[in-house]
Order: sequence, then C-alpha cells, then structure tokens
Amino acid sequence: MIDLRSDTVTRPTSAMLAAMAAADTGDDVYGEDPTVNALEERVADLLGHQAGLFTVTGSLANVLGVGAWVRPGQELLCEARAHVARAELGAHAAVRGVTTRTWWDVRGRVDLEAIRWMMAPDAGPYLVSTAAITVENTHNFAGGTVQPWEDLQALRTAVDGTGIRLHMDGARIWNAQAATGVDVADYATFFDSVSVCLSKGLGAPVGSVLVGPADAIAEARVWRKRLGGGWRQAGVLAAAGLYALGHHVERLAEDHVNARTIADLIAAADASVVDPDAVETNIVLLDVGDRAERFVAEARAAGVLTGVVGPGVVRLITHLDVSAADARKAGEILATILHARPK
Amino acid sequence: MIDLRSDTVTRPTSAMLAAMAAADTGDDVYGEDPTVNALEERVADLLGHQAGLFTVTGSLANVLGVGAWVRPGQELLCEARAHVARAELGAHAAVRGVTTRTWWDVRGRVDLEAIRWMMAPDAGPYLVSTAAITVENTHNFAGGTVQPWEDLQALRTAVDGTGIRLHMDGARIWNAQAATGVDVADYATFFDSVSVCLSKGLGAPVGSVLVGPADAIAEARVWRKRLGGGWRQAGVLAAAGLYALGHHVERLAEDHVNARTIADLIAAADASVVDPDAVETNIVLLDVGDRAERFVAEARAAGVLTGVVGPGVVRLITHLDVSAADARKAGEILATILHARPK
Amino acid sequence: MIDLRSDTVTRPTSAMLAAMAAADTGDDVYGEDPTVNALEERVADLLGHQAGLFTVTGSLANVLGVGAWVRPGQELLCEARAHVARAELGAHAAVRGVTTRTWWDVRGRVDLEAIRWMMAPDAGPYLVSTAAITVENTHNFAGGTVQPWEDLQALRTAVDGTGIRLHMDGARIWNAQAATGVDVADYATFFDSVSVCLSKGLGAPVGSVLVGPADAIAEARVWRKRLGGGWRQAGVLAAAGLYALGHHVERLAEDHVNARTIADLIAAADASVVDPDAVETNIVLLDVGDRAERFVAEARAAGVLTGVVGPGVVRLITHLDVSAADARKAGEILATILHARPK
Amino acid sequence: MIDLRSDTVTRPTSAMLAAMAAADTGDDVYGEDPTVNALEERVADLLGHQAGLFTVTGSLANVLGVGAWVRPGQELLCEARAHVARAELGAHAAVRGVTTRTWWDVRGRVDLEAIRWMMAPDAGPYLVSTAAITVENTHNFAGGTVQPWEDLQALRTAVDGTGIRLHMDGARIWNAQAATGVDVADYATFFDSVSVCLSKGLGAPVGSVLVGPADAIAEARVWRKRLGGGWRQAGVLAAAGLYALGHHVERLAEDHVNARTIADLIAAADASVVDPDAVETNIVLLDVGDRAERFVAEARAAGVLTGVVGPGVVRLITHLDVSAADARKAGEILATILHARPK
Repeated sequence: MIDLRSDTVTRPTSAMLAAMAAADTGDDVYGEDPTVNALEERVADLLGHQAGLFTVTGSLANVLGVGAWVRPGQELLCEARAHVARAELGAHAAVRGVTTRTWWDVRGRVDLEAIRWMMAPDAGPYLVSTAAITVENTHNFAGGTVQPWEDLQALRTAVDGTGIRLHMDGARIWNAQAATGVDVADYATFFDSVSVCLSKGLGAPVGSVLVGPADAIAEARVWRKRLGGGWRQAGVLAAAGLYALGHHVERLAEDHVNARTIADLIAAADASVVDPDAVETNIVLLDVGDRAERFVAEARAAGVLTGVVGPGVVRLITHLDVSAADARKAGEILATILHARPK
Repeated sequence: MIDLRSDTVTRPTSAMLAAMAAADTGDDVYGEDPTVNALEERVADLLGHQAGLFTVTGSLANVLGVGAWVRPGQELLCEARAHVARAELGAHAAVRGVTTRTWWDVRGRVDLEAIRWMMAPDAGPYLVSTAAITVENTHNFAGGTVQPWEDLQALRTAVDGTGIRLHMDGARIWNAQAATGVDVADYATFFDSVSVCLSKGLGAPVGSVLVGPADAIAEARVWRKRLGGGWRQAGVLAAAGLYALGHHVERLAEDHVNARTIADLIAAADASVVDPDAVETNIVLLDVGDRAERFVAEARAAGVLTGVVGPGVVRLITHLDVSAADARKAGEILATILHARPK
Repeated sequence: MIDLRSDTVTRPTSAMLAAMAAADTGDDVYGEDPTVNALEERVADLLGHQAGLFTVTGSLANVLGVGAWVRPGQELLCEARAHVARAELGAHAAVRGVTTRTWWDVRGRVDLEAIRWMMAPDAGPYLVSTAAITVENTHNFAGGTVQPWEDLQALRTAVDGTGIRLHMDGARIWNAQAATGVDVADYATFFDSVSVCLSKGLGAPVGSVLVGPADAIAEARVWRKRLGGGWRQAGVLAAAGLYALGHHVERLAEDHVNARTIADLIAAADASVVDPDAVETNIVLLDVGDRAERFVAEARAAGVLTGVVGPGVVRLITHLDVSAADARKAGEILATILHARPK
Repeated sequence: MIDLRSDTVTRPTSAMLAAMAAADTGDDVYGEDPTVNALEERVADLLGHQAGLFTVTGSLANVLGVGAWVRPGQELLCEARAHVARAELGAHAAVRGVTTRTWWDVRGRVDLEAIRWMMAPDAGPYLVSTAAITVENTHNFAGGTVQPWEDLQALRTAVDGTGIRLHMDGARIWNAQAATGVDVADYATFFDSVSVCLSKGLGAPVGSVLVGPADAIAEARVWRKRLGGGWRQAGVLAAAGLYALGHHVERLAEDHVNARTIADLIAAADASVVDPDAVETNIVLLDVGDRAERFVAEARAAGVLTGVVGPGVVRLITHLDVSAADARKAGEILATILHARPK
C-alpha cells in the first residue's frame, strides 16, 4: 500500500527509535525531562521566540496558542478551511469559549480586505471583540499552499497597534521553508505565537511544539495540564522530535518533487482534475466531482490510500514513507483510474 | 432628542402600562404565570410552531434556539454580520461551546453556494460537523434587509435530509411581514426554531419569544434557568408583549415610510452616502467613510442620536417613538451635516 | 390556596403596580434607564458597596458575582446545600467553568475548620486554586438560618491576605436583618460581592441586584449581556424593586412571626417533625420521612401548597401574600394531616 | 537523590525501551496503530469491560470517563480530596461543564450516608441532577488507601436503578490488587467506567487507559481528539504500557513493603508523625504540622525528594526506581530530620 492520506502516517525510522531509546528522561510535569526541555528550547530558538511547549498534538498546540490570546466570548478570525476551524472538532469554542468568523480564499491565503472589514479589536460592551487572527502555513485543506511573505507582512502591519494577536498554525512550516527558502524564523517573526508539528512531514511519531512569549507559554503549560496533556517521561518522544529536526528537514524538498510528479501524471490523464502548477509543497488536491468516494475506493483497491477532504475534493500527501518510485507508481495508478472513468 | 440609535429605545405607552398593571400574574418558574403562558401560546400560534418560551432578550432566545440544535464542538453557519455572530458577545461559543463559520453577503442574504461548500452535516470523528444554520430576517447590520422567500425555500431544500437545523433570528420578523406582505408564519415554516423580539419595533419594554418543537422548548426552558433567565411574575412584561402584538404590528409600515423619508433627504444632499432604494424596512445605513465618529457627534449636538455599526457605517433606525415629523426633521438635520462636510 | 412553596410566588400589589406604571424608563443596555440606575445606586448604597447591577434573577446575580472572582478551572467553596450548588442548574460550571467543593453543616453555616482544610488560595500549576467562597444568608435549604456575625468575621479573617474572595448570596439578607437587627451593610462589609433578591420576601415581581467594586460590576455587566440578560426598559421592574425597598422591608418580621406560628402548631401535633426553635426567619423545614410526597399531596388537597426540598424534607415559606390568619389556618391544616398519619 | 515525590517519576527500563523500539506502529487517529489497539484490548479485558481508550494522562482518562456520563450543568459527587476534584485543574468544570459536590472522609472512602443525602438522580428542571459518582482506588491524597470491597458493593446497590453512573479513578488500581488480592476485574465490576494509569506504579513513561462500554468509549475517542489528545504513532508508548502490564504488576508488593519500612523508621523516631498501620500501599503521609516546607527542604538537602500535598501533610511514594535499600536509607534520613526538630 502507498499511503497518501496524510503525512501523519509516517512510522519512526530505526535511527529515530535508537535516539528515543537513548534519551535521557524525567518527569515533564515537574519540568524535569531534559530531552523535552532541550526540544522546547531548540524549537523556540529555531523560530526566534522566547519559549516553547511540547504538546501531544498540533490541535493542542493551536488550542493553547489561540487560547493564550482570546478570552471566552472573544473572537478569532481565520480562513474558512483552516485546520483550527475545520479539523479540531470545535475545540476552541467547546473548551476555551472562542467564537470564530471566517473569510474564504481559494488558496487559503490572507484576505486583507475581508479581515479589515471584520476585525473589531476593542468593540466595547455590546459587540464581539476580535482578539486574534490565525494563518495556516502551509494551508492544508487549500492544498499545501504557502502564505506569501508580503501578505504576512501586510497582515502584521494591519493589526499593529490594535491589540489583535497573530497565531500561525505552522504544522507544515518547514514545508513552506523548503518551498520558498524563507527561513521559518522569518515567517515566525510576524506572529505572537506559532505551533509547529513534528509528526507530519518531519516523521516523528507524536508531538508538536507551541512557541511564544515566556509568560504566554507558562499559562499554556497550565492549560495543557488542564486539558489532560501534561505528560511525564515525554523525553522518549522529544528525542524523536529532536532527531527529526536534525535529519528530516532537508529532505522535505523530495516530498515536494514527489507531489509534483503525481500531479503531473494525473494531469496528463485528465487535466481537469488538477493543475500541477498549483502544487506548491507536498499536498495535491484533485477535483473529481461526484466521483470522490468511488475514486478513493478504487484507488484503495489498486494499492493507493487517499482521502476526501471536501465536496468532490480528494487529497494526496507525500511524506517520508513515500519514495520517488512510490510517487511515480501512485501517480500512474490514479491516472489510470481517472482515465477509465472521466468526470 | 430624536433617537435613531435603535428600535430598542422605545418606552412603553400609557395604554401598554395600563395593560401591564392589569395583568394577571404568577410564578413563571413554576409555569404558573397565566399572562406569560398566554403570550407564549399566542406567539407560537402566530408563527405556526408548537411551543414558545418568553425570554428576557433576543440574545437569550437565540442562544437557546441555536443551543437546542448544536452540541458543544459542533458548528453553526451564519452570515458574517449576523447578530448571533457580532452582537451576542460570543455567547454561543462561551456558553454553549458552539463553533461558527461565516459567509459574507452585502445584503446579509443566504449565499447558497457558500453554504453548500461549507456545510458538513455529519463529518465524522475528525472534522467539525455542521448542526445548524441561522438566518436573520430582517438583517440588522446589513441594513434591515428582508430575506427573499425563494432563498429561504432553497435553503430549506438544501438542508432537508441532512439533519442540519435552521434557526431564524426573527428579531424584526414583523418588519419583514410589513415590507413584503408575507405572513410571519410563512417565513417561519422553513425553520426549526424562530426567535422574535417584542422590545424592538413592537415597543414592549423587555422580552423576546423563542418558538419551536415542544421538546426543544422544554429543554430551552431548563437552559433559560441555567443562564439565569428564569424569571418569576414576568406576566407584567408579557402583558406588554401581548399589547404590542395587538396594537403595534400594523403601524410598522409607518416606520418604513419614515426610514425612506430620512434616506431620501440624505441622498438628496449626498447621493454617495445612501441609496434610498436599499432601504427596505426601518433601518438606514449611511456610508460616511472616515467621518463616522465625527458625524455621530455632530448629529448628537444637533439633536439626533445615531450609532456606528461598522467601519464608516452609521445606522439609523425608526420606531414607535419617531413620528413622521421627527423623521423629516432628523433627515434634514443629517443632510445639513453631510452637506456641510462632503466625504 | 395558601401558597407556602416559596416567597418567590408573591404578586405585585396595586401600589407597586402604580409605581411601575409611573416609572421613568430608558434603554438599560445603554445605561440610560434612570429608574434602573437609581435602583442600582440605592442597593449599592444600602449595602455599602461601590456599584450595583440589576439582574433578572438571583441565580444570574450569583453567576456574575462568583464569576467576577473565579476563572475557568478555579475553585469555589460553599456549603453542600447552598443555592449556588443545588439550585442554579450547575451554571457556575456550565457557563463559567467554575469547579466546586463543598462542606456540610446542618444549619448551612460556615465550617471554618473544613474551609481551612480545603482552601488552597494559590495552589500552583498542578492543583486547583481556590478563588472564592460563598456564604448564603439566610440559608434557604438549611431552613432560613442566619449566619452568625462571628462566623462571618472569622471567615473574613481566615481569607484576608490569601487572595480568596468572599461572595454572599444574600437573596434573603433582609430576613437576616429582620431576625437579628444587624444592618445589611454590616453583613455586607465582610464580602467582596453580594447578591440580593427583590422578588423573594420583598415582593417585587422580577429582579435581583449584585453589588461589589465598580470594576467587577462593569465586567459583570458585559457578562450579563453575554448570558442574555441585558434588558432594555427594565425601569418598569426596577420601580417595583425601589417600591419594595421602601415599603416591604419592615414587614418581614411579620413573616417570621407567621413562620413560627406554623411551626408551633405543627410541633404541637407532632414534635418529631419540627423544632420551632430552629425557625429563625420565614422558612420552616419539616422532617416527615418517607411521607414527603404524600404529605405534600394531602396538603395541596386541603388548600396548602408546600414543596419537597430534600429526602423527607418539606419546606414552608411565609411571605407578603400570607397573612397571620393564613399562617394559623395553614398550620392547623398541616397539623391535622400529620396528626392523622404519624410517621 | 531518592525521589519519593511521586510514582510518576519512574524512567523506562532498558527492557521497556527495547519493547518500545520493537513496536509495530500506525496512525492511531485512524485506529491503525496495532500496538495501541492491543493495549486497549488488553486493559479492557483485564478489567472486564467492553472497550478501552489509550490516553496521554490519567487526568484525560478521567475527564473523558466522567464526561461520558455527566452533561453540562449536571453533577459529579466525589470525596473532597479526590484527584478529579483537586489535581485536574478544574478540567471537569472548565472543559465539560460538570459541577461537583464533595464529601469528606479521612481515608478517602465512600461515605454512603453523605452520598445518599446529596445524590439527586433526576432532580427536575430547577435543581441540579446528580449524574455520576467517582471513587478513587487507591486514594492518592488520603494516603494510598484501598476502598473496601463492601463499600463499593454498597455504593453500587445504592445507585442501581437511579441512572447515576459510577466511575472509578483507578490510577493505582493495581496497588489495590497487590494490597488485597482482589482482582482488578472484581473492583471494576461495580463501575460503569474505569481509568487506569500505566505511568505511575507500573513505570511506563506516558499513558493511561479508560475502559467502559463500547459506545461510551467511541464518544470518548472523539472528545479525546477535541481535547487535543488524538495522537498518531502512539504504539511506541503503548508498547511500554504492555511491557509494564507484563512485568511490573507483580512487583508492586515490593513498593508496599518499602513504604512500610519508611513509615516504621519514621514512627520509631516520632510516632506522632505517622501511623505505620495506616500505610496500606505505596504512599506514606506524614503529619508534620507547620514544619512542612522546612522538612521538605531539609530532606532535599539530605538527598530525599518529598512533597507537600495539604496543610502540614508531606507525601512519600515508593515506586519502581526505589529499591529496598533506598527505602531504608530514605527512612533513616527522614527520621533523623524529624528527630532533630520535634514538632
């Protein structure tokens, strides 16, 4: 099986497992796990922020990051297909009381006009006050798209002086770096907090890191425990994260090449289904119309796992466990399926 | 002072106060206030729904109505300037755990394409499930616009069979009826629950009513108490509501004429500020650009109270306490201010 | 029917209704209802606190008062049968995220030893921090018992310097004053916030007031609107409250005499059911064992309404609509029922 | 350093690390991690329940277990020093809207009289309904005390037919088994759901398991993701849990012997500080009065880590990383400190 459902499916490599087994550990609830501490410092440093917090998932890192800025009844703005809005099971509302309004952009980008119209930074005692805006980079459900540097800069300028905070959902921020050459720290400079994921493209089994100001991270640490995420000897997992940062960042470019290979093969079979130029990183979205469920089933039968992420939209993601040969084979299989049954 | 800030500012008339003083009352927590019961039955009957619940505000009626359909972590869809999203202080998220995504329409209308794209009625264990959609009729912050009948019909068709529920924020539903001749019951037929307000155009001092199926209303009654809204001898207020329903519905058309008068006078002075044809009911929105705060201050100094409801947007609302003469005078005053200082 | 279920059942008198009809009103959401403002100032003044907030119920006043001091995940301590724990439908947890621990005292009093053992004012990042303690005076479900002055003084001393705040649920604080001669302001001096109810013994149809520091009340005002309690021309109700403060405080002593009359008559019939010396104010608790439901039904059939408030416990409350003759008659009826069917 | 602060501080052994490195893994969000699945089935089987859910912490397992039974605004009853009340940062209220009332027992046991008085299984629309009761076995803050079998049986009988559910916080349930010989499945038979911890006495680095009916576990799985606990290749951790179940259960009896050794040594020095007969499992509570902070500091200086868990109460816990020799040495050190400075 070639598994293109998500880059979360990667399994730890032997070298990573060895690093995990060799990790020095301690009780992280007491702040005494040296490997966790090293990971938190390493990621904070890489992103140019004061402090870091190791969390079990990216969802948790986002809930803690957004929750650091938005009080119950206040507002978060985000794109309509953002992971925080679609894929975290309403946690921001259910757990932290955060209300949301959304704009829509086909590539998941910042729509500064919509944001300017919606944002109400200090709306008084009758209207909802906007407290934070989230940007996802790269944007998963929009197809792994990279946020243009200028858009982020303009967004920062738009909120400066308003009190509105910016949180980046950087679950795939290293993919953005690989695609553009912009350093993750440069992306992070515009944001008050950033979450990054170690278990997607980087291939660690479990874990994300939230970075931001030291006091916000301290409060997030308490809320992490309140949400049941205060783990103990998490150094075994942090070691995997540190290994991934040391060994799996550079190779992300290969995933991007592989994604493009798949898109090219499919477009050659049916150009209406995907525009290869729209593939910026490791995610390929196919527009297969009402064939989506059948397509996924046929692909599975033929040895390729994919998933539906929206009406008629099938998502393919390349990752550490998909070789160039796998990509070519998957592309050929999917092209054949599409060729056989035009939309 | 001519107060055009909101139709919530009306004071009870002498006849209404007499009706209140004559009301038979009881303890509504025990369901024993006959006047409250009569009001709840009357409104449910007018809207063609099974049962009603008298609430202290329209916000509470909306929180209870939406909350009847949406569980913590599930999703509500609404237009971006809907009262439930902008003017209820995030209650749906803070109090009931409801997450929200929004579409944008310049007249606050149903955007069926956006809704179709966003709605995910039973999204499984990873993605947010859409449980309800709210439509505001008339739409306050879009300028008192009426929801076209065909749009509501199409929305109903779109959700039928999906399990998604429809809630109408009908705070000004009698204004819609006055503008179109469509009976409130006909509007209500498309919705699983409807909130209506007695203290806006109808002129009661306090109170709204939520209507819907009997079991949903029974659950809403418990949540009303949980939110601190389980009042006692509320019959004194319900009597005002019943009086308003008997005496203040027909006259809403006058408010619409008065709003149009004001808009005409202002447009004559500066046609860029308002399009009188856009005034469908009792609300006039002026687009005064960066003059908004100054305009409101100057209007106040000249004897007219208005309010800013968005960037550069000033809102005027006519109501029971604004006569035709008041409207003309207010229109002239505001026109003079705009004439003196063009945008 | 003689209704002894609760002092909430009183209906407004003619004089009170006249005061309501004569009230000057305005839009209280904008802070412009002069009668509401007068009531809030009057109650704050009576209790020696900075500011007041008029709320639709005592439950809402308690939720806002406690919520002013306790953040989500922090702890409130109270007696196990306190109204905030038993009769507000879990609002403090469901709406504000407040967790609770309880002590038990047969008369609903402060158990300083238990409080000292439980309270953890600044418990760090692993344990729950106690943020507030609530005392109910008089204590409803313990039988209208008055909190001894010395206990309140000792409690204040115990929390001074810890950061723990004290909230008094003073729904029946004027009953305490009537019973002991201690001024309500003297009771209030020990507390950071106090809620008082106008619709219980004082006989207003609807309404309570929360008092406390100006900044806490300002925040409570926003939360009042978030919870759907931001009413408009509430002056019609505030006028009833002001009338009640002016005319119904002195007469509370009569309710206490009437309650004692009922208790005496019942004890004469069956001394095991009630100790008249335990009746401190306007509440009588009868311990009728497993006869409770039957007793209530028989009393109803004989013209007296009562209610079950705990296992085997029937509660009787005297109030404005129960005359001395009513009390005597009710006592005789209930005594007859108990006499006929011994426990 | 001999670390007696908690049994959570244990570090994975070499054999456990080898098991982790050898684990077959997959994406547990998709239910595809075979080692996680094996662990969940194993624990459910050991406890005689239908299904299991692997969680990052015992707090999370408790929040999900209690949350399966208690709706927002409903009530949980528990002992006043229960972990769910004291050590989960108010999560049940903050995250699930659960309100709590507590009883007090010096040994943390079931107080059936208090429970009978408090429990209100279906309290109607005005009063809080009790939906669940939690029992902690062994009870951490009461000193590792075991819940007597008869008490659990009586509790089960008391709630049968009421609809009230029982959740056992079995973080140290294998310690109870080791102390009494009662099989964990026999303890679990009385409960609707049980949480057990693998990272306390059993020595796994991270993880707990919640067991219960299949439908409740399915809902808990969704809420686990909502709370940010939906991890990916958690099989590396599950392998540690499986290893611990296979190799570290039998040895818990050694921890109990070691705890008794420490208590005996201390009691020999100062019998007022601890009663060795009260040590039932691996926890020793010392009552050192106002010396607590100083005692902990002096112990630390002398090479023994301990912690304050209540006013004047110091807790010592033995575990996998404390040998019999360590226990003797620690006992001697602590005895010396107490001997030098009598209370």
